[in-house]
Amino acid sequence: MKRYLLAPGPTPVPPEVLAAMSQPIIHHRTPQFSALFAEAAEGLKRVFQTQQDVLILAASGTGGMEGAVTNLLSPGDEVVVVNGGKFGQRWLKLCAAYGVRVHEVVVEWGEAVEPAAVEACLRAHPGVRAVLMQASETSTTALHPVETVARLVQRSDTLLIVDGITAVGVLDLPMDRWGVDVLVTGSQKALMLPPGLAFVALSERAWARTKGAELPRFYFDLTREREALRKRTTAWTPAISLIVGLREALRLIEAESLPGVFARHARLAEATRVGVERLGLRLLAPRAPSPAATGIWLPEGVDGARLVRFLRDEMGVTMAGGQDHLTGKIVRIAHLGHVGAFDVIVGIAALEMALARFGHPVAAGQGVGAAQGVLKDEWQGSGTG
Amino acid sequence: MKRYLLAPGPTPVPPEVLAAMSQPIIHHRTPQFSALFAEAAEGLKRVFQTQQDVLILAASGTGGMEGAVTNLLSPGDEVVVVNGGKFGQRWLKLCAAYGVRVHEVVVEWGEAVEPAAVEACLRAHPGVRAVLMQASETSTTALHPVETVARLVQRSDTLLIVDGITAVGVLDLPMDRWGVDVLVTGSQKALMLPPGLAFVALSERAWARTKGAELPRFYFDLTREREALRKRTTAWTPAISLIVGLREALRLIEAESLPGVFARHARLAEATRVGVERLGLRLLAPRAPSPAATGIWLPEGVDGARLVRFLRDEMGVTMAGGQDHLTGKIVRIAHLGHVGAFDVIVGIAALEMALARFGHPVAAGQGVGAAQGVLKDEWQGSGTG
Repeated sequence: MKRYLLAPGPTPVPPEVLAAMSQPIIHHRTPQFSALFAEAAEGLKRVFQTQQDVLILAASGTGGMEGAVTNLLSPGDEVVVVNGGKFGQRWLKLCAAYGVRVHEVVVEWGEAVEPAAVEACLRAHPGVRAVLMQASETSTTALHPVETVARLVQRSDTLLIVDGITAVGVLDLPMDRWGVDVLVTGSQKALMLPPGLAFVALSERAWARTKGAELPRFYFDLTREREALRKRTTAWTPAISLIVGLREALRLIEAESLPGVFARHARLAEATRVGVERLGLRLLAPRAPSPAATGIWLPEGVDGARLVRFLRDEMGVTMAGGQDHLTGKIVRIAHLGHVGAFDVIVGIAALEMALARFGHPVAAGQGVGAAQGVLKDEWQGSGTG
Repeated sequence: MKRYLLAPGPTPVPPEVLAAMSQPIIHHRTPQFSALFAEAAEGLKRVFQTQQDVLILAASGTGGMEGAVTNLLSPGDEVVVVNGGKFGQRWLKLCAAYGVRVHEVVVEWGEAVEPAAVEACLRAHPGVRAVLMQASETSTTALHPVETVARLVQRSDTLLIVDGITAVGVLDLPMDRWGVDVLVTGSQKALMLPPGLAFVALSERAWARTKGAELPRFYFDLTREREALRKRTTAWTPAISLIVGLREALRLIEAESLPGVFARHARLAEATRVGVERLGLRLLAPRAPSPAATGIWLPEGVDGARLVRFLRDEMGVTMAGGQDHLTGKIVRIAHLGHVGAFDVIVGIAALEMALARFGHPVAAGQGVGAAQGVLKDEWQGSGTG
């Protein structure tokens, strides 16, 4: 069966990247590896929109989140966590594991955080050392207002730590300009790689804070990692093949240009929303939709878990279902990474056909047609005259 | 230039494994992935020679070592560390980072630890909670007597934590039978994969100990990882492509049989030693040589750093040099993983030619010839009559 991957990570790996990764392995303590590692590290700075070093860790994104906590905080420190979904909860659990005290800003699933709620929480707890949030909350497909929160946080010496795992390389998130202090992402999202790499960058004031941060760390010791990076290597054995792929993926991003990449994600997301709304379905995050993925409420009576299974096992189209209390109630169509207009077409057409199969007939082609109205802007060149 | 990788990790990746890893990525929360993950996890139990679960972490081997410390120990715990090289030192640094008190058994580089020294240290410090050691100390190519140390340690409720990173899948190290409590390895050694996976197994008494272990952990929380494994998944996003490769690599190991794999490593190591000794060179670890790699003292006046560079950049043969005080003084030829008789031939021939080039002429072909005397046992079949 021909398969289509429309889940919010892992995302499809481009053939150029697969080909690069399938070359014979090279040793990592060699000039050959150092040169490609340095090229990848430079490329990452452009994607992060930062002058700071972007560290490359052999771990999944959660490892990068752990490094953000353990390198910046001390036992008993107070932080604010924006909790609007499964990944907001991950910050909570991480802080609990390390004895960091959390003031939680709870956000309804599918909503973006109100900056005023963060501001009130900061005012109520003046000792707060950091605010931890997601940029794009993958579990709900909502987009949090990082820029506005950054402005609030910068007034004090509180740090802003952002999980950008489904945001970096998807949407404009200029780390330095907005004043994000710690930005984390992973390889298997917009960077179009298999999972296994986490990336972390710190602002100047975050680096200064690491000196006094007393939580224990070793594998995720970012200072040690930065020293190694400046010698064009890593502290521990790097995930070589993934870094070889990373260089290739970054070249693809450069070729498309970062604004081009952001515009494509925005267009695919809009087309998806327009398409599913035309089918009479409601969006999970209508007010603040993420350009990475679109969460959709399923009609009453449609078993979402079975629908997602049918899409995957019978139709070959892998989307994501809902987590926790959203289990069985939603479907999430991702449109990030190595995806184009026809992935959206496939996703909406598959949803149309699957819904019909599950007793909720929709007018075949209506959603696809509506999406086409947005997707046509993908091609602006001549040659059609 | 045609390249040959004879370094102690990363080791060459077999073409079957590269081909498996270059297939389109699949999603990890699917029955497809669960099936291959479960197959890989079962195969790992055979390689570890254990009935226990073998956990698969997205990290390099050092991450597995960190998990062994943080899941088994509490702040202020006393441990014994066998320090006979660069990786013995890593245990020291890890313990220091987490506030674990170390009693060090210092071993001269190139020597194996004396079990009596461990015994004396345990007697002097009856409160010791664990002994941490390497099986094969990659930096010195010495092999430590894990079986004997395990017998000593088992008398008490002290745990034995073994870094088996260049030992598991190289030599017979039956975890359950010997009573090793924690065994760690990485993907880029005998398992013939790119780096990026760490593997950890715990004995029953080690699992019991985790309940009282108070060091903080989250990404490397082994209890959480075991719960996930039993649901045929991982706690965090797994390094999917490497696990796809792992299944393939384990199939290759099964096809050769574990005793066959061990015998091959032993033969290649012996052939390497015989070959380089015939050239009049001295072994770094003559009394307890590891079957993973062979460290060789270079003749006086030969600059080892330049020699290793010449081998790599001019001849295309990547070996390892020495670390710390051995820098420039030794060369290490590895023979683990996807290697065979002709890799040893290439390694010795390259060394013969490079030494001649560096002003230390050796009788060309003498080392190779001596190695052949051992390597001929590789082929025992008929067809030559």
